[in-house]
Amino acid sequence: MASKMPPPRFVRSVLKSFMAESGLEPRHKYDAHANKLRITNAAESKVDFELRITKDHTNRLQILHGGTIASMVDFGGSLAVASMGLYATGVSTDLNVTYLGSGGKVGDIIKATAVCDKIGKTLAYTTVTFWNQNGELAARGSHTKFVAKAWEASPLFTPPDGAEIADKVD
Amino acid sequence: MASKMPPPRFVRSVLKSFMAESGLEPRHKYDAHANKLRITNAAESKVDFELRITKDHTNRLQILHGGTIASMVDFGGSLAVASMGLYATGVSTDLNVTYLGSGGKVGDIIKATAVCDKIGKTLAYTTVTFWNQNGELAARGSHTKFVAKAWEASPLFTPPDGAEIADKVD
Amino acid sequence: MASKMPPPRFVRSVLKSFMAESGLEPRHKYDAHANKLRITNAAESKVDFELRITKDHTNRLQILHGGTIASMVDFGGSLAVASMGLYATGVSTDLNVTYLGSGGKVGDIIKATAVCDKIGKTLAYTTVTFWNQNGELAARGSHTKFVAKAWEASPLFTPPDGAEIADKVD
Amino acid sequence: MASKMPPPRFVRSVLKSFMAESGLEPRHKYDAHANKLRITNAAESKVDFELRITKDHTNRLQILHGGTIASMVDFGGSLAVASMGLYATGVSTDLNVTYLGSGGKVGDIIKATAVCDKIGKTLAYTTVTFWNQNGELAARGSHTKFVAKAWEASPLFTPPDGAEIADKVD
Repeated sequence: MASKMPPPRFVRSVLKSFMAESGLEPRHKYDAHANKLRITNAAESKVDFELRITKDHTNRLQILHGGTIASMVDFGGSLAVASMGLYATGVSTDLNVTYLGSGGKVGDIIKATAVCDKIGKTLAYTTVTFWNQNGELAARGSHTKFVAKAWEASPLFTPPDGAEIADKVD
Repeated sequence: MASKMPPPRFVRSVLKSFMAESGLEPRHKYDAHANKLRITNAAESKVDFELRITKDHTNRLQILHGGTIASMVDFGGSLAVASMGLYATGVSTDLNVTYLGSGGKVGDIIKATAVCDKIGKTLAYTTVTFWNQNGELAARGSHTKFVAKAWEASPLFTPPDGAEIADKVD
Repeated sequence: MASKMPPPRFVRSVLKSFMAESGLEPRHKYDAHANKLRITNAAESKVDFELRITKDHTNRLQILHGGTIASMVDFGGSLAVASMGLYATGVSTDLNVTYLGSGGKVGDIIKATAVCDKIGKTLAYTTVTFWNQNGELAARGSHTKFVAKAWEASPLFTPPDGAEIADKVD
Repeated sequence: MASKMPPPRFVRSVLKSFMAESGLEPRHKYDAHANKLRITNAAESKVDFELRITKDHTNRLQILHGGTIASMVDFGGSLAVASMGLYATGVSTDLNVTYLGSGGKVGDIIKATAVCDKIGKTLAYTTVTFWNQNGELAARGSHTKFVAKAWEASPLFTPPDGAEIADKVD
């Protein structure tokens, strides 16, 4: 079994797993190597990430799609749960997004902070906040997850056998 | 300018426009010809659609991704606004999703109904409901849109010049 | 112990309990005898109720207060859980309200339907819809409740000893 | 006409108006003199307030009612709009609450911070966060308001003629 990791490397390993096994966040779309989606910071309960906006992420107005932001609330809330040490991150119960302004256009970088406000045996409560390239609040979301089974999946901060592991983070 | 259309053809033309100009709903992912995403019925204020789930739409558990459903609440609410005759469908203000059960696995079809509950000069209120292949309620969402500028974009039920037009619907 | 009851009488008994033991829904404010708040119909998974609007329920504009509606989403969702046979109705996790139009002024009656969409061992999912006196959709809400402990409180459709019991319903 | 006021006194005057003219927040229930509801701080875009919990605010479990918290999200978001200088604070479009833990029991004080994240000509976006007496996050909410007509009601930070005015704040 992989060994216990500090949060920054563990959260990046969960992101690798999303990209390897999930169809919605595939490598070509959120590829960390291409600097599209990047975790810039991860600590227990808090993950900062940013997305370089490409054509894949925009709507007919050529700005960041509301659906992309909603997906990132889902995705970001899951990373916030992962930052508490859970490799499996549960299933969604409720997700809300409020859109306050444009997230930006192709080429811009949107920054986000995901926070796990509380985690219990059954439910985890997360929030994700987004700022556009001008530093303006673009959107904020809330994501509640059912995590009862996620606790049992593997020891805290430890990817399961065979999982792709992120490089060590300095 | 294109001529005025009945709702079924008009809503399908808006969907064509999403696929042509939006990066999030590209032809390869929601291709109507490949029967991935299909509007099965459209009338004023109500649009039925269904998605054949592919690997693109699933999460690590190999079931429909919460982010895909959230995107379809965004997308479905926009189609419901389109069903009122608006080619431009405004921008999102608030979006909520509640997840009640699995949406299904690769190969399954998830059905959805999007309704425009009310539209005024400024705001449109929509709901989207999802049923999995077993007919169970999988999710429901609410999507509020700011449509003040959308009213001015083109005459009701009339795509702008140069827009791709859906085939006539019997 | 009180005996098992059919849903209409059971739900009305739960309402009695709200009025007796909760400070937010006291008898003087929602008094059924004064016809302020009235359950007009109750079946398994669905409760119809109506409120005669008084000064207690309005805002500075002299129309139904958004906070009153939000409270009735909480309250209505709980009655919908009760309609599944649970005397204890759990605690809230997420509550959403979308306001589509005026709920009415003092003297008007606002009608509501609360539905329990799904109930599991841990979570119950409810929706509440409101129509004003003109039959227009005034608001709709979603209320997710944590019910794990509520299942253990008493046998289904059976008030605990000492509970106030509603009159038989024809 | 009353003269222009600094935010702390202006927001307290709006609260006086809620208590005088709204049925949901009457003087006897949220009486500032009885120290039930108290604005502890108000600056442009941010209002801190606290509620001493009484029997009026609790549920059958004798803890703070989810409906009371939902009402305070409505109410707090309105105060946050007021803190931008608007005496009229518009009407609600969407309101969300996530409940993370107990708000407390009778006699406890619950603290809240309401923030106006953004205000435009048409919409205002607010958040309200609640901490119980132990300093734990009890709930958080989002409240979007339609303020197009509220801008026209009176000059910024100036109560209309005849309005009750709060005492000067040191």
